Amino acid sequence: MDSIRLEWLNYGKDWVLNAGEIIKIRLSEKITINTKSHINDLVTNIDREIEDFFKQKVSLIKDHRLLGEEGDFVNDSDGYIWILDPIDGTTNLVTTGRDFVISLALYHNGQPLFGIVYDVMRDELYHAITGEGAYIKDKKIPQVNSDLLLDDQVIICDIKEIISYPRVVDLIQQSRGHRRYGSAALEIVHIAVGRAGAFIHMMVHPWDIAAAKIIAEECGLKYTRTDGTSVNVFEKGSSLVAPEKLHQQIVTICFS
Amino acid sequence: MDSIRLEWLNYGKDWVLNAGEIIKIRLSEKITINTKSHINDLVTNIDREIEDFFKQKVSLIKDHRLLGEEGDFVNDSDGYIWILDPIDGTTNLVTTGRDFVISLALYHNGQPLFGIVYDVMRDELYHAITGEGAYIKDKKIPQVNSDLLLDDQVIICDIKEIISYPRVVDLIQQSRGHRRYGSAALEIVHIAVGRAGAFIHMMVHPWDIAAAKIIAEECGLKYTRTDGTSVNVFEKGSSLVAPEKLHQQIVTICFS
Repeated sequence: MDSIRLEWLNYGKDWVLNAGEIIKIRLSEKITINTKSHINDLVTNIDREIEDFFKQKVSLIKDHRLLGEEGDFVNDSDGYIWILDPIDGTTNLVTTGRDFVISLALYHNGQPLFGIVYDVMRDELYHAITGEGAYIKDKKIPQVNSDLLLDDQVIICDIKEIISYPRVVDLIQQSRGHRRYGSAALEIVHIAVGRAGAFIHMMVHPWDIAAAKIIAEECGLKYTRTDGTSVNVFEKGSSLVAPEKLHQQIVTICFS
Repeated sequence: MDSIRLEWLNYGKDWVLNAGEIIKIRLSEKITINTKSHINDLVTNIDREIEDFFKQKVSLIKDHRLLGEEGDFVNDSDGYIWILDPIDGTTNLVTTGRDFVISLALYHNGQPLFGIVYDVMRDELYHAITGEGAYIKDKKIPQVNSDLLLDDQVIICDIKEIISYPRVVDLIQQSRGHRRYGSAALEIVHIAVGRAGAFIHMMVHPWDIAAAKIIAEECGLKYTRTDGTSVNVFEKGSSLVAPEKLHQQIVTICFS
């Protein structure tokens, strides 16, 4: 990656770490909040504050734009676009107080340059540069074992997949078990570092996956729609992420 | 609690912390292990090593017995019985490397004296003394809010409950979401500290719940079978754990 893009990556990592600190401060202030409406307000306020933080940062870079869950609508993929989810896992933010991430990626003319996923409470920063590998806390993540098979792997999906696709139930029963943590970006990077075997989701938005997809692919994972077709992150749709052979098993069992 | 029992509690906490250190050392040695049979062997070996560690400790206390997953069969509840799960969440141990606990409780003539649940990788030790409250890292856990209702709470259950009880699907759809972490004892203490609203499981063993049940009840949670009847931890069966009103909602929606 050329030096100017490397500088943007370093900007991005700094912003994400700073935003994590803001979230931790806001969470430590929530002690006095205990009604439902107050909790929802808290989440909305933090989400907005973090998005505004990034909006201000990106606005300082000439010709760069921001695409975010709460943000302006970007209806093309021309030029440099930062894709942000200020908090992926907002329910976790107010319930478990963990398992939520900040997701940030930079794309150029629709092509991925780098992605950053920050597990705030564990202080684990994942990032990947297209073509140059993925890292956790700046340590290279090894390539996944593409020979892994279903019977020894845990499957991550939401109850929506289980309800909609009875064959997903068959799949899970043939697997080592089912997990659900409640943050798509976090769950995808879990697969990248080998903490689970596959991630299946019927409807993810650009900001949920823009960064995690780069990290997953740089670790050698296959990342497609559930029917095996390629994913344009600027369009919402399904995601199926797994090592090569397991990916094929899942398509065969559930979606063919 | 009288001083001798308090001493046993302190023994138990020390043992659990030491056992956690052993597990961490064994995990750090696993780097070279990469075939399925080796991984399963690793889990079996750590499980046995930890159980043997506790067996040796309990054997030094006169007239105390140990009931454990891998251990001797205890077919009565007379006298002092320690109930142990050396590792609850063995699949997590080898996949995520987190979200597994050591569970240890002491019962006397079938009545609970205290329970300890140790989240090894987060270094979070939960304990409770019957009638005297529950603690996380020796800090008192506040009573749960018994007025919490379904629409604002996350439900923890396994896919088995979802498959067997279509009404559990209705329940989850009315809730704030579904989570599954893969360790019953850990999931129950999550409810105790308010990280989720309810735990539902169709088949738990004495060692899965002996400690977590004490912690849950000392936090004001209602802990029953799914049909609302009381739980004898020496018998395997279902578990439904939630704050009072939510518990009633779940029985009504799913199990009445």
